[in-house]
Amino acid sequence: MLEYKELKEGQVLEPLTKEPVTKVQLVQYAGASGDFNPLHTDDEFAKSIGMNGVIAHGMLVMGFLGEYVMKLAGTNAETTRFRMRFGAMTRPGDVITCSAVVKELYEEAGKKYVSLSLTAAKSSEETVGSGQAVLKFY
Amino acid sequence: MLEYKELKEGQVLEPLTKEPVTKVQLVQYAGASGDFNPLHTDDEFAKSIGMNGVIAHGMLVMGFLGEYVMKLAGTNAETTRFRMRFGAMTRPGDVITCSAVVKELYEEAGKKYVSLSLTAAKSSEETVGSGQAVLKFY
Repeated sequence: MLEYKELKEGQVLEPLTKEPVTKVQLVQYAGASGDFNPLHTDDEFAKSIGMNGVIAHGMLVMGFLGEYVMKLAGTNAETTRFRMRFGAMTRPGDVITCSAVVKELYEEAGKKYVSLSLTAAKSSEETVGSGQAVLKFY
Repeated sequence: MLEYKELKEGQVLEPLTKEPVTKVQLVQYAGASGDFNPLHTDDEFAKSIGMNGVIAHGMLVMGFLGEYVMKLAGTNAETTRFRMRFGAMTRPGDVITCSAVVKELYEEAGKKYVSLSLTAAKSSEETVGSGQAVLKFY
């Protein structure tokens, strides 16, 4: 959980490494999200459209980053902005690490804010998503 | 919807034929039921344990029979008993037909009942489940 007074611009925050993505997790995410595109759950279908097999829902990876941002904010701040751009595909077995760099610290209307540059990457350092979040401290 | 006065013991009721089972449906059923055993959603896993591929959750087939019984009961009766024994496995692509035979008509404490023998079968006539239901008429 971040403490505003301990942050510096350019600071690299402690990352969050998720357990390897599993096919069961993609089935669970299909149910949780309502996105039942078989590209995410049916290897045979995925191969029929030229993929090597199923790929994760992009929003699952955004969910990983969201979990990370929520942990950074903890009970000290609220998330006022959160966005992400997708990069490489995530496949079962991939280990995703979420990381963040402090981009800017600022005050507005008497409130303290931090903007973060976010990255979700495979262990191979291949980026699967990059984004931005703004936390407003209480 | 059944009308008590039109029923006879031994009568064969109008069947219900479901759309072919799909892999997406199994993913949906995993989410709806909370049964995420990959045997039902991951062909690769299913093959690794000696199957030809994924098989449907047995309870999905029971759900088909349940839907059938509910349609038979409609607003004329309530289901007071419903049970099923599983037979052959159901796979994606299988077309399941639910059928019923009137086993017994009886009255108890002034209420009219019908017991039904239920069958869920593949188009090949291979039985995937057999069961019994009792409807109590209003």
